[in-house]
Amino acid sequence: MNKATAQMRPEESGRIAAFGIDLGGTKIAAGLIDTEGSVLASASVPTPATEGAEAVLDAVAGLVDALGAAPEAAGLRIRGLGMGAAGVIDAGNARVLSATDTILHWAGTDLSAGLLARTGLAVRAVNDVHAHGLGEAWCGAAAGKANALLLAVGTGIGGSHLLGGVPQTGAHHVGGHMGHFASPLATGVRCSCGRTGHLEAIAAGPAIHRNYLRLGGDPYVADTRELTALAHAGDLLAIQTLRTGGRAAGIAAGSLANILDPELIVFSGGMTGAGDLWWDAVREGFAAEAIDPLQQLELVPATLGNDAALIGAAGLFLAPQTSKD
Amino acid sequence: MNKATAQMRPEESGRIAAFGIDLGGTKIAAGLIDTEGSVLASASVPTPATEGAEAVLDAVAGLVDALGAAPEAAGLRIRGLGMGAAGVIDAGNARVLSATDTILHWAGTDLSAGLLARTGLAVRAVNDVHAHGLGEAWCGAAAGKANALLLAVGTGIGGSHLLGGVPQTGAHHVGGHMGHFASPLATGVRCSCGRTGHLEAIAAGPAIHRNYLRLGGDPYVADTRELTALAHAGDLLAIQTLRTGGRAAGIAAGSLANILDPELIVFSGGMTGAGDLWWDAVREGFAAEAIDPLQQLELVPATLGNDAALIGAAGLFLAPQTSKD
Repeated sequence: MNKATAQMRPEESGRIAAFGIDLGGTKIAAGLIDTEGSVLASASVPTPATEGAEAVLDAVAGLVDALGAAPEAAGLRIRGLGMGAAGVIDAGNARVLSATDTILHWAGTDLSAGLLARTGLAVRAVNDVHAHGLGEAWCGAAAGKANALLLAVGTGIGGSHLLGGVPQTGAHHVGGHMGHFASPLATGVRCSCGRTGHLEAIAAGPAIHRNYLRLGGDPYVADTRELTALAHAGDLLAIQTLRTGGRAAGIAAGSLANILDPELIVFSGGMTGAGDLWWDAVREGFAAEAIDPLQQLELVPATLGNDAALIGAAGLFLAPQTSKD
Repeated sequence: MNKATAQMRPEESGRIAAFGIDLGGTKIAAGLIDTEGSVLASASVPTPATEGAEAVLDAVAGLVDALGAAPEAAGLRIRGLGMGAAGVIDAGNARVLSATDTILHWAGTDLSAGLLARTGLAVRAVNDVHAHGLGEAWCGAAAGKANALLLAVGTGIGGSHLLGGVPQTGAHHVGGHMGHFASPLATGVRCSCGRTGHLEAIAAGPAIHRNYLRLGGDPYVADTRELTALAHAGDLLAIQTLRTGGRAAGIAAGSLANILDPELIVFSGGMTGAGDLWWDAVREGFAAEAIDPLQQLELVPATLGNDAALIGAAGLFLAPQTSKD
C-alpha cells in the first residue's frame, strides 16, 4: 500500500474517538466517545466481581467488541481504551496497585497488558474518581478551569484536584483520598479504612444511614434514599443526620478550599441528589470553614451525571490537556 | 559601546546572584544569594510596621543598598529582588492583596512598582510561607522532590504544596492556608481568622500556651518556650498541651498526605525545636490518620533554618524550576 492509499483508509480519515470504561464493583459501563466528549454509543454489564480479574477483563473486552461492532463505530479512528477503575491505580503503567476485596484478585492486575492482549488497543487508566474529575474538567462543570476540585459524595467519598485539567494523582498514586480526612463531626466514628474520625465515616451515603440508626432511628428505614425521603417529609432525626453529613462535607470542602484554592468546587455522587436539605447544610459548613477571600467560591453540582467517569476515561486519549502524555 | 565591549562588562560576566527578602511583621531580613542557594551576605532591620507601607519599602531598599555595597557583591550579576512577604500576595503582579493590621496600610501595596522605583531591580514576590517552601524545595529538605509538602508550625500555621518545586499559590492567591483547616482537636476553639475549630487554634505555638492556661496551667508560665521546658521537666499539663498541639499537627499532616500524596512532608517553624515530646505526638497523629500506603512517608525537619524564606525568595529568580517565569 502506498502512502496516498494509506491516507485514504477510513480509520485514518474518519472521526477520532476512544473507548471509555467505568469499572466499579457492581457494574462495568463502556462508552464510545468522540473528541467533543459526546457518548456515541454505550453499554454495560454487571461486574463478575467474584470470578476474579481475568473474568472482569474478559467482560470489558466483550463490551468493547460489542461497541466496536455498533453502527456508530463505523469509520471512526479509535485512539485507545481509557479506563476509570476502582482501587489504587498506577496511571503511568495502567496497573492496579491495591484494592479492596470487592473484585476478587483485583490488586496487581496489569490493565494495560491484559486489555491490549484482548482488544489490540492502547490502554490508559486512572482511579475512577480521577476519571470522573477529568470528565467534568474536560467537558463538564469544570470545563476551562485551570484549578478545580471535584468532591464525590456517594457510597464512599473521594476527590480529584485538577490542575490544567489534569488530575493530581500524587507520588504514590493515592492522591485524592478526600474521604480519609479528619472531620470534627466524625470523632470516634469508624471509617472504611480501619481508622476513625474520617469524613467518609459520617458524610458518605451509607454513613448517614448508619448514623441515623445509631441515634435511635427506625430500623425499618432501609437506606439513605428512604432516610432522605423521610427527612423531606419532616422527620427530625432524618433531617439531623442528613444535615450532619452535608455539613461535614461542607466543612471538608471549606478546609480543602483553604488549602488548594480552586476556582470552583464540583460536587458529584449520589448525595448531590438529596435535595436542598443536604445542599443547604453543605453550604453552611463551607461558609463556617472557608477563609474570607473564598466565601464566594462556587459550589456546583457535576453536569455529566453517570457518564462522567467513562467520558473522563476516554479523555485520557481525547482531552487536550491529558491526551499528549 | 559595541557588542564585544558589552559582553566584557563585569555585571555581565560575573557570577549570577539575587537579593532575597524575608519580610515579616517584626523583622525584615535580606540576603544576597548565589545560584547554589548560598547566602553570600545578609542583614536585617526591625520592620517599621507602625509607619506604614512606604516606610517598610524604604527599609527594604536600605537593606538592598547596604548589601549591594558589601564586598561580597563585587562583580556579581544581580538578576532581581525576590521577596517573601506576610499577607496574601498576588505572585503574578508582586502585589499585597490583603493582610492583617500587623503592618499599617500593607494591603494594596504594589511591591513591584514601589521597589523598582527605589532599587531599579526587577521584583518578584510570594507569600512568606511559599518562599519558605520554595527555599526548601530548591536546596533544602525537599530538594529534587517532584511533589513535596511544607508545613510551618510556629506563631501561626501555614503550608506550601510544591509541584516540580513550584509553590501552588491557588486561583485566588490564598492556597496553602493549612492552619485554617478543621481539626478534631480544636472543636469550638477560636481561630485567628475569626472562625472556630481550625488547626492553628490548637497547634500553633501561642495556641498551645493558651490551651495550657485555659486548662488551669500556671499563669506565670509566660509563653510556649517556658511551657516546653516545663513539659520536658515532667509537668503533666505542659506535656498534655504540647502533645495535643503536636498530635493535631500530625493528624493534619496525615489528612493532607491522603489528599496531596507528597513524596515527603517537611516541618518548619518554631515548634519543630520543641523536642521529642512534640515530634512523637506529630508522628502518632500522622500514623492515626494516614492511609496504609502512606504510613511510611518521611516526616522531616526543614534544613535551611531562618534563611529558608530569603533563600526561597531569591529562588524566584535563581531556582531552575521558578526562574523561567
